[in-house]
Amino acid sequence: MATSTRKRPRSSGLTHADAQGRVRMVDVSDKAVTSRMAVATGFVRVSAAARRLVRAGAVKKGDPLQAARLAGIMAAKGTATLIPLCHPLSLTGVLVDVELARGGIAITATVKTSGQTGVEMEALTAVAVAGLTVYDMLKAVDKSMVIEQIVLVEKRGGRSGDVVRRS
Amino acid sequence: MATSTRKRPRSSGLTHADAQGRVRMVDVSDKAVTSRMAVATGFVRVSAAARRLVRAGAVKKGDPLQAARLAGIMAAKGTATLIPLCHPLSLTGVLVDVELARGGIAITATVKTSGQTGVEMEALTAVAVAGLTVYDMLKAVDKSMVIEQIVLVEKRGGRSGDVVRRS
Amino acid sequence: MATSTRKRPRSSGLTHADAQGRVRMVDVSDKAVTSRMAVATGFVRVSAAARRLVRAGAVKKGDPLQAARLAGIMAAKGTATLIPLCHPLSLTGVLVDVELARGGIAITATVKTSGQTGVEMEALTAVAVAGLTVYDMLKAVDKSMVIEQIVLVEKRGGRSGDVVRRS
Amino acid sequence: MATSTRKRPRSSGLTHADAQGRVRMVDVSDKAVTSRMAVATGFVRVSAAARRLVRAGAVKKGDPLQAARLAGIMAAKGTATLIPLCHPLSLTGVLVDVELARGGIAITATVKTSGQTGVEMEALTAVAVAGLTVYDMLKAVDKSMVIEQIVLVEKRGGRSGDVVRRS
Amino acid sequence: MATSTRKRPRSSGLTHADAQGRVRMVDVSDKAVTSRMAVATGFVRVSAAARRLVRAGAVKKGDPLQAARLAGIMAAKGTATLIPLCHPLSLTGVLVDVELARGGIAITATVKTSGQTGVEMEALTAVAVAGLTVYDMLKAVDKSMVIEQIVLVEKRGGRSGDVVRRS
Amino acid sequence: MATSTRKRPRSSGLTHADAQGRVRMVDVSDKAVTSRMAVATGFVRVSAAARRLVRAGAVKKGDPLQAARLAGIMAAKGTATLIPLCHPLSLTGVLVDVELARGGIAITATVKTSGQTGVEMEALTAVAVAGLTVYDMLKAVDKSMVIEQIVLVEKRGGRSGDVVRRS
Repeated sequence: MATSTRKRPRSSGLTHADAQGRVRMVDVSDKAVTSRMAVATGFVRVSAAARRLVRAGAVKKGDPLQAARLAGIMAAKGTATLIPLCHPLSLTGVLVDVELARGGIAITATVKTSGQTGVEMEALTAVAVAGLTVYDMLKAVDKSMVIEQIVLVEKRGGRSGDVVRRS
Repeated sequence: MATSTRKRPRSSGLTHADAQGRVRMVDVSDKAVTSRMAVATGFVRVSAAARRLVRAGAVKKGDPLQAARLAGIMAAKGTATLIPLCHPLSLTGVLVDVELARGGIAITATVKTSGQTGVEMEALTAVAVAGLTVYDMLKAVDKSMVIEQIVLVEKRGGRSGDVVRRS
Repeated sequence: MATSTRKRPRSSGLTHADAQGRVRMVDVSDKAVTSRMAVATGFVRVSAAARRLVRAGAVKKGDPLQAARLAGIMAAKGTATLIPLCHPLSLTGVLVDVELARGGIAITATVKTSGQTGVEMEALTAVAVAGLTVYDMLKAVDKSMVIEQIVLVEKRGGRSGDVVRRS
Repeated sequence: MATSTRKRPRSSGLTHADAQGRVRMVDVSDKAVTSRMAVATGFVRVSAAARRLVRAGAVKKGDPLQAARLAGIMAAKGTATLIPLCHPLSLTGVLVDVELARGGIAITATVKTSGQTGVEMEALTAVAVAGLTVYDMLKAVDKSMVIEQIVLVEKRGGRSGDVVRRS
Repeated sequence: MATSTRKRPRSSGLTHADAQGRVRMVDVSDKAVTSRMAVATGFVRVSAAARRLVRAGAVKKGDPLQAARLAGIMAAKGTATLIPLCHPLSLTGVLVDVELARGGIAITATVKTSGQTGVEMEALTAVAVAGLTVYDMLKAVDKSMVIEQIVLVEKRGGRSGDVVRRS
Repeated sequence: MATSTRKRPRSSGLTHADAQGRVRMVDVSDKAVTSRMAVATGFVRVSAAARRLVRAGAVKKGDPLQAARLAGIMAAKGTATLIPLCHPLSLTGVLVDVELARGGIAITATVKTSGQTGVEMEALTAVAVAGLTVYDMLKAVDKSMVIEQIVLVEKRGGRSGDVVRRS
């Protein structure tokens, strides 16, 4: 009976402890393993001149779209290393779209897993790191880029049901 | 003309090769080692209800501001691992401010180094990862947060002189 | 006499080689996936002066207890990267308590997973790294700290049954 | 002509997109979780003088065979961090043999998992990194080593059936 | 009383914020680059039976002393990744001794660098991870090991002068 | 007979221990900081059918040449994490060429630094990981690739002078 780990009476009622902000990686041991996916998007506002260079394949460091896709995928896999309280997860699929769009570069990341927690953070991290990579590759030609509007647009699987954000 | 990049004839003139977007980590061997710093900012738009929880220290995962500061600092150190073409750098100082603000949580990262390239990417990465951490810790209570306006606001040292963005 | 490492024909009979200590990550392919948990504890002996600073929130680098909790959690996730022969595992919960105690700072880490091997190393690693983090944050004010008594106090799940250490 | 890849219409039919080489981590969500293993081998061509030093345990940096076995095992665990589109996997067993052979040092890595994708890349990565480690430890005494013949020799489990390479 | 962290206006005067323990990586930009070294030691208390196995080279996972030396060296290099507020440093030398001793296994790590901050944390981290590795490799045969007495015994270079601990 | 590892009194006289191959990261504290570069090459033997797919940009996972270049650059930066006794180094430039060639895919990596040790291992690691990445992306269409002939072809700077390998 009872594991008796005194001193850590789970979060409930721990107002004082909580008030001190003690971090914890939430216990998901009892959650079901289900198929989950998440889609996040973001945008890097880029000058017309820099966009022309991208279109012409003339960026000194190489193609920022390709590099950003790859960096985004790798970042999705490293999410639990980066975000302190994220659960480590095995991902079953990652797709990162990085495309020239009106006014900048649009990023969409789709992440899938079969696990006990969702993959929102993996999708958002992929978008953020893809955006940072675009920034890095274009910063020599545009010093006023903005990485913006990083949001979750879709989430499926898991207890909290499906979430879809209207754009 | 023609791809023909047999045996690494450095980038010069390789317009066509560039047009194929071949990535490279730019050679900074001849740049001077100087004292450099960069400041970046960003914002996480958060609901009033979630902000109240943060203020009350009642977020289930722990204090998001503290966790985000730490995650931002660690991310700054890992920038070259995350951003494919970033040069690895030894940082001499990192400060990540994450504070409750009107409408959300404001993030400012200041990074310093003594090196051959700037630390813009380190500052921006710290901001992005601090923002993602805030998101992770509040996503149970706010499903429509937006990470936004990640920009470089100050840069000192190095050949390209000082850059300061007006807000 | 032979060490009898059946199951891996490649090394079979290589008594001498075994005697030379060739490392291997033990094959757990045939072990059952079960719910597992482990609790480890440790202690950092800290001067009264340094403990007063911690209590007053006046440590120059920031709150060592908060930082140590977070570092411990992140280290638990990175255990297989750090300990050469540890199996990589997906953790379902990690809690790291770091509290001021008589004579120093007491650390307790609780780790859970559902997998084919136990999480003792994850719990011990979380304790060790939380201890190192405390040390790092207080070393400017106390040059004679000792990280001590890192032990496993509880282990549940898996073939070897439950282990509980009396303190 | 317009890229127009609005909203991730999976790979199917995206000939043009493919022609631009957009990377993706292939979606294995619908593949069965099965028991899988792979064996890879490689060879480091090493001078007779350097092999004598290894045999005598007289290499300045330490025993290259031991270090290479360990580095190979650790690399197998880090494969998904290293190879951009590799799926992260939990490994259940890794064995890396590194032995003096005629003309050099022979490496064999055996990796096992229970998962939705194979472990060929893990076995090959273990071999490559073990080879690089041998190189690193002997480069002071042999400046013309060659790491060669890194191949997959056996693969079991998964849809594509068993593959065995004759040597 | 105010902690006076001049130079970063953002935090200036934020006594209360400081009291909340906001973390920062201390700014060492103005410290001199000097030659530095640190030595740390630790001990793993191990049963006589387990020590006999080590001596006989009969531990199933391989030679724990060798593996621990290597894991310690690698951990020293990864210190800044593990300890949140540690400065990233280029190390010029690392030696980790792990030897059978009376009552257990004794660990000594010596780390050198040329930099703006000391390498105490690198030496301590090497000791801790070497100790954890010993534990991992012997835990099948000894379930009551203790990792203990991790201390800094020597520190040279840098402003705070030489520190030597008597044992 | 004694291996004479003077300079590290701690291990002095431990002839037998040395003969057992205790690893160490060689102390380079007294070496001069000089400008260094290294070039390594390697080859992945690939079937004609797979090469045609690469040329046509029709590989399901994306362009293997682009992905391999990026993976090689990132691996160069991570060399000290991968190769146990490698010194951590700040790189000032990395270029990884990955091109279709007769019978397969040819890889050349050029790495530069200003430091106390050479960058041979960084160049060789970049080549090996670029080769593994090519393998990963083509393994669905060619099951008998060989990664071969990984060699150092050029090395400049440092005490051991310039080394150039004739092909």
